[in-house]
Amino acid sequence: MRPPGPVRTFRIDLGYDGTDFFGSQRQPGVRTVQGELEAAVARLAGEPTRVTLAGRTDRGVHAVGQVASLTLRWARSAAELARALMALTPDDVVVYGAQEVAPTFHARFDARWREYRYFVWEGSPAVLLRRSVWQVRRGLDLAAMEMATGAFVGQQDFAAVAGDGTGVPGGGVNTVRTVSLARWRVVEAPFERTARGGRLLEFAIRADGFLPHMVRNIVGALVAIGRGEQPVSWAAELLASRDRRRGGAPAPPQGLVLWRVAYADDPNGVE
Amino acid sequence: MRPPGPVRTFRIDLGYDGTDFFGSQRQPGVRTVQGELEAAVARLAGEPTRVTLAGRTDRGVHAVGQVASLTLRWARSAAELARALMALTPDDVVVYGAQEVAPTFHARFDARWREYRYFVWEGSPAVLLRRSVWQVRRGLDLAAMEMATGAFVGQQDFAAVAGDGTGVPGGGVNTVRTVSLARWRVVEAPFERTARGGRLLEFAIRADGFLPHMVRNIVGALVAIGRGEQPVSWAAELLASRDRRRGGAPAPPQGLVLWRVAYADDPNGVE
Repeated sequence: MRPPGPVRTFRIDLGYDGTDFFGSQRQPGVRTVQGELEAAVARLAGEPTRVTLAGRTDRGVHAVGQVASLTLRWARSAAELARALMALTPDDVVVYGAQEVAPTFHARFDARWREYRYFVWEGSPAVLLRRSVWQVRRGLDLAAMEMATGAFVGQQDFAAVAGDGTGVPGGGVNTVRTVSLARWRVVEAPFERTARGGRLLEFAIRADGFLPHMVRNIVGALVAIGRGEQPVSWAAELLASRDRRRGGAPAPPQGLVLWRVAYADDPNGVE
Repeated sequence: MRPPGPVRTFRIDLGYDGTDFFGSQRQPGVRTVQGELEAAVARLAGEPTRVTLAGRTDRGVHAVGQVASLTLRWARSAAELARALMALTPDDVVVYGAQEVAPTFHARFDARWREYRYFVWEGSPAVLLRRSVWQVRRGLDLAAMEMATGAFVGQQDFAAVAGDGTGVPGGGVNTVRTVSLARWRVVEAPFERTARGGRLLEFAIRADGFLPHMVRNIVGALVAIGRGEQPVSWAAELLASRDRRRGGAPAPPQGLVLWRVAYADDPNGVE
């Protein structure tokens, strides 16, 4: 039985712990964020309903600022939709809220910029944070990493830090993006005894769009510089080469969090 | 085959994510921290070996400052023992280090004081921190909680906040303890967007010893005051009653972390 109610479009703000997901996008036979969301919405709508996610996240990558759009028959309030979705989704997904939007709203295509944060824990083993940090040995040269970070800011061709073959010369994909912000910060690490020797580094990066693996490849390059494996100047050289094959290994997925997706009519201020 | 080497006693510093443990103390048929540690040590020692833990933690409670003592035949260095234990224990246990100590050292009886921290997340749903916080609704009166906290400091009879029957009048257990520090702090919350509305509160408490459920009962009482369910004066009244039956529900286990155990000859400074 299809529930009564007009056809309406909603924006859903959500987050997830990516540890036990095979990424955000629906795939047959595996647990994905889109799959779990669509299963929950189907129960509410009484029919299969497509959910669109603003940002695609890889297997193991988290989100605290993911945005979804969906269109369904719904007679109750947006807040009741958010509560119903929260109740029907598993523990590792949270629904922050829902708002009705214009029928033309598209979570992915309407996004103006996205922000990711990447967390690096440097020092003695982390235990309570281990599912959301990249653990590296002590001795990172943060000043060198900060200097090299500037190379990735601005409108540039990011082919050298794009994964999935998009960075191969002649691949035919537009790999130009505009990074409007990239910075490192040492943040407080609750749940771990930093006095034992250790610090939590947070890398924030904001752009109009991101190529596959782009953040993880940039962090991987910056940590190679922080370890002294490459000079500061290598960041700009790598980028100028436009050749993915010159880069190193990407940073692992568990340190990456989709932090925020911004829209033109977003009522929330910049944080 | 028993490995060669003299019989030596070691102090092991360790941490664990308590989520998937049935507490710290060995129990037949369930996964415990002591059980996992003793299994690892038995493989190194070639024979069953008892491990003593400084602090007993309940099911679901974490540690980043647990201390163990053990005596075994070991021919290599303390650092090699730490590395071997790290390699043989599961992902949710970390070994920070090992040091050789006097044969009389006892992790539990030699402890001078212990410190626990309890984490409360107030506001929009937490996802990446959900395994190590107590999530409560917004609106806690932190100033009231801070005022009430003073009632628990000093040498007092803590029967009213002791679990497991120890607080029943006439139970015959000494329920006097000395709390040397108790304070609340708002801490930075990496991995969650506090701009969405939310804050992370950290409660630190240090004492010569803790009764079962003591920290969780104190936090439960202070949060009841923060919610306005009880006046500030209730903390002192509850304690003076010496009657566990007057208290409310304990705070849930996942917010609690055994932070540090201090010894007379501890080389580490106060943090």
